[in-house]
Amino acid sequence: MEIIIRDALREDMTAVHRLITELAVFEKEPDAVEVSIGDLERDGFGEHPLFHCFVAEIDNQIAGIALVYPRYSTWNGPVVHLEDLIVTQSMRGKGVGASLLKRVMEYGLAQGVRRIGWEVLDWNTPAIRFYENCGATIRKDWKVVQMDAQAMENYLKRK
Amino acid sequence: MEIIIRDALREDMTAVHRLITELAVFEKEPDAVEVSIGDLERDGFGEHPLFHCFVAEIDNQIAGIALVYPRYSTWNGPVVHLEDLIVTQSMRGKGVGASLLKRVMEYGLAQGVRRIGWEVLDWNTPAIRFYENCGATIRKDWKVVQMDAQAMENYLKRK
Repeated sequence: MEIIIRDALREDMTAVHRLITELAVFEKEPDAVEVSIGDLERDGFGEHPLFHCFVAEIDNQIAGIALVYPRYSTWNGPVVHLEDLIVTQSMRGKGVGASLLKRVMEYGLAQGVRRIGWEVLDWNTPAIRFYENCGATIRKDWKVVQMDAQAMENYLKRK
Repeated sequence: MEIIIRDALREDMTAVHRLITELAVFEKEPDAVEVSIGDLERDGFGEHPLFHCFVAEIDNQIAGIALVYPRYSTWNGPVVHLEDLIVTQSMRGKGVGASLLKRVMEYGLAQGVRRIGWEVLDWNTPAIRFYENCGATIRKDWKVVQMDAQAMENYLKRK
């Protein structure tokens, strides 16, 4: 079984959106995906793409994706952030995730970054084990903080 | 006491670097700052800046900074990431952090993003309380994962 890793094309965004939704359901937030296929087509391509996407193909079917973009660490300078690494349920355990992650590492090293980073749910033990086996570090002491637009507006009204 | 929030200038990067280093010491990683003043001057300015920095001034002294850049959420689309919110030790408790965070929210809303996000150390209780009081959500279930260049090279050699 051959796994082909390639850059995503605009016309892959329907399949990419399906995988993003599949991950949201797995992560118990089925209604979280506000981004549309059209948003991905607009945001990921053109003159100033906001992300770069790799896809893994098996028998001409998209089995997984890795979606990355640059971040800036005030400790390490430019870094690569892996927003999503997704392998569709039926294609897990075949090395698709490892092939995608390997490509992301090559991409990061080619850019000369000192680090790649991503986030994982603390109950997703198979993912955590996989990442640790790859040599990644789980930073147990850092928490993700988020504030949505409504909360921002509420805060600004207080003042 | 007047707190002035303004965009950072290239010549502020010496003070900004000092605050980044002060935070790294506070966060018990005194040797973590590999970025130089020159890196910040190059990376934050010019035609394609990798970050945007706000500074808080009191009596013409830089008392704090907020450093942001864009990220891309596959759930929410373009978002603003707050990499660092730093107030120098001697200027804490005067509202400098709140003024900076308020400016970041205005900046995010002006850009039309659905969310701003950042990270906090789980033992930094005063910061967590401050963020929660502002209406932010601490996502206790997400872990930060990192892989440095050496770990990437080691992994790629394995295959």
